[in-house]
Amino acid sequence: MTLLGHEPCSLQNLPAEVRVSFESETRPLVCHEKVLYLLDQRCLPRTVQYLACTTIEEVATAIREMVVRGAPAIGIVAAFGFAQGVSALAHQGIAYDEAMIDRLDQRLRQTRPTAVNLMWALDRMTGLAKRLFQEKTLSPEAQVERLFAEAQTIETEDVASCRAMGMLGASLLKAGARLQTHCNAGAIATGGYGTALGVVRAAFAEGKCSRVYVDETRPRFQGASLTAWELHREGIPVTLISDNMAGALHQAAQVDAIFVGADRITANGDTANKIGTYALAVLAKAHGIPFYVVAPRSTYDTTLTSGALIPIEERDAREVTHVGEQAIAPEGVSVWNPGFDVTPADLITAHINETGVLYPPYTQAIAAAFASTQL
Amino acid sequence: MTLLGHEPCSLQNLPAEVRVSFESETRPLVCHEKVLYLLDQRCLPRTVQYLACTTIEEVATAIREMVVRGAPAIGIVAAFGFAQGVSALAHQGIAYDEAMIDRLDQRLRQTRPTAVNLMWALDRMTGLAKRLFQEKTLSPEAQVERLFAEAQTIETEDVASCRAMGMLGASLLKAGARLQTHCNAGAIATGGYGTALGVVRAAFAEGKCSRVYVDETRPRFQGASLTAWELHREGIPVTLISDNMAGALHQAAQVDAIFVGADRITANGDTANKIGTYALAVLAKAHGIPFYVVAPRSTYDTTLTSGALIPIEERDAREVTHVGEQAIAPEGVSVWNPGFDVTPADLITAHINETGVLYPPYTQAIAAAFASTQL
Repeated sequence: MTLLGHEPCSLQNLPAEVRVSFESETRPLVCHEKVLYLLDQRCLPRTVQYLACTTIEEVATAIREMVVRGAPAIGIVAAFGFAQGVSALAHQGIAYDEAMIDRLDQRLRQTRPTAVNLMWALDRMTGLAKRLFQEKTLSPEAQVERLFAEAQTIETEDVASCRAMGMLGASLLKAGARLQTHCNAGAIATGGYGTALGVVRAAFAEGKCSRVYVDETRPRFQGASLTAWELHREGIPVTLISDNMAGALHQAAQVDAIFVGADRITANGDTANKIGTYALAVLAKAHGIPFYVVAPRSTYDTTLTSGALIPIEERDAREVTHVGEQAIAPEGVSVWNPGFDVTPADLITAHINETGVLYPPYTQAIAAAFASTQL
Repeated sequence: MTLLGHEPCSLQNLPAEVRVSFESETRPLVCHEKVLYLLDQRCLPRTVQYLACTTIEEVATAIREMVVRGAPAIGIVAAFGFAQGVSALAHQGIAYDEAMIDRLDQRLRQTRPTAVNLMWALDRMTGLAKRLFQEKTLSPEAQVERLFAEAQTIETEDVASCRAMGMLGASLLKAGARLQTHCNAGAIATGGYGTALGVVRAAFAEGKCSRVYVDETRPRFQGASLTAWELHREGIPVTLISDNMAGALHQAAQVDAIFVGADRITANGDTANKIGTYALAVLAKAHGIPFYVVAPRSTYDTTLTSGALIPIEERDAREVTHVGEQAIAPEGVSVWNPGFDVTPADLITAHINETGVLYPPYTQAIAAAFASTQL
């Protein structure tokens, strides 16, 4: 459970300010004095421990090894990692140029291919870094400070987005609604509060959520180990199911609405999200259950016309054949392990982003949302 | 991994005749000299070991603890357990009466509520025992022999049924078909050869199966640990997926036909089977993939008019929250863990039993099949 030789540390061993931040609210990361402290999500729900990243290499590894995951959180962490990369150059007295900026960008961009927030955050950071480099009005140290501030702004904006989406999502619900979610689109998948779980939190606060059914989300169990952990610790009534029970749950009329996050949404509304989302959307449609995608505008990739163009990460067979060290399948068996799937827009009741609720036809609604002055 | 204090034993330590039987063909049980040897399916795929049951209590425990599972196999094992129960009475010189027969029956009947083959096999065994008791033409020892012979006949008939269903199922396929199955309706869920996997075996032998996609089947992983094990050891190309990948697999047009087993089929064709079967059937329908149920006539419960009347076993939360000793969910979280679900007849392309292939409307087709002289 160590990362690049780093020892994990407990809450008690964190710097006081960092500890208070993690204690006050469920969150995946805190950046303090240029050190990025990450909740090690691989160890939940058994162990709550943290890793400190001080270099871009450590941040890249943390993303790839899923110490941190969730599209918005990956973008934020990458932004801090990029700032750390520039800081290291400045610290060594290296006058960085555009090619060096691009190399730092590439190091992080290649960690995970599906979530577009990663690309969005890096575009924003590299754009700023190049502008600062060209302007040459700030000292290298001041440029680094400016980049860390920008990463912090991305984090702050993301939390504000989540709270806005939570209110919008909750407004669609009636009192006592029974909700369902897949994977973890929670506080720890974002800057804080969560996208789909932001709706759950807002709805619960308003008396509009009597229970949340959580798909365990094989193969990595993010629903069981992260979502159930987040909600259970906050006292929101949660019932865990295996993914394949969703059909029977819908058949038994136990779900009023489904909220999921997204890793990338294309111009027509097609949505890449954790594997199993598509099957859940098909089941929802068959049972007349509203199916909502909750994601900030940083998750939209309007350069792609449809979901068929989204690259889907194929992950290691061992995620399916083993649980921890325990083999659950015969050695050498073939495995198919796509990390994500694409839900076509026609299975999605509405898209919720921080500026509003979008309804079909999505091509027009998304184009209008991105043409608005709020962008 | 021991059962009632019994030590498991390896293949090498089994009596020679028993060892040869387990080696020659994939099978869940061998009865030899009134001892019932069971492959301990809880330990697969890591360890191949066996438990010897000599009493009805041990057999009841083996069924309840899922040393053996699969509707037809449970029926066969219960038949042998019943014979052992009568044998114990005879051995103690107890002149058994109808009330005692009913008590033995009840001990086994209550082990698992959903699979009707258990009730079917016990009806057949208790019916015979009561007839023998009333006739009083055989000595107690000879009655016991007769009961063991009846259990053996149930086993032999079941294997013959599986081979017949395999041929019928394969006849529905074209060369090189890509198949999918859920849970384990295999050799070790039956007397041998399997129901759904009987079709796979027959199709593979005829060149009509190029690959089998196997759902891992949470929460107990019967697909990963049993079905993948059965097929992989016989050289049939198998690809393991997590249950929630089935939708994406169908979307990618990788499956030509789905075959599943059944735990109980009602007079209208509704089918109880392992949890997740219903969701798979909904997905199959949405993608135009034929969905076949393969089960012998002992799985039909024509006393029930619809699947809504089938009792569904709810199982321990720990099956969902833990994998082996490893917790994957926060302590104390609520869980819903139905062992089975009911697939309505209108999602089923055809029912395959040992006497033919039944198509909708099922109420008529099933009534006709059970009215036939072949019963």
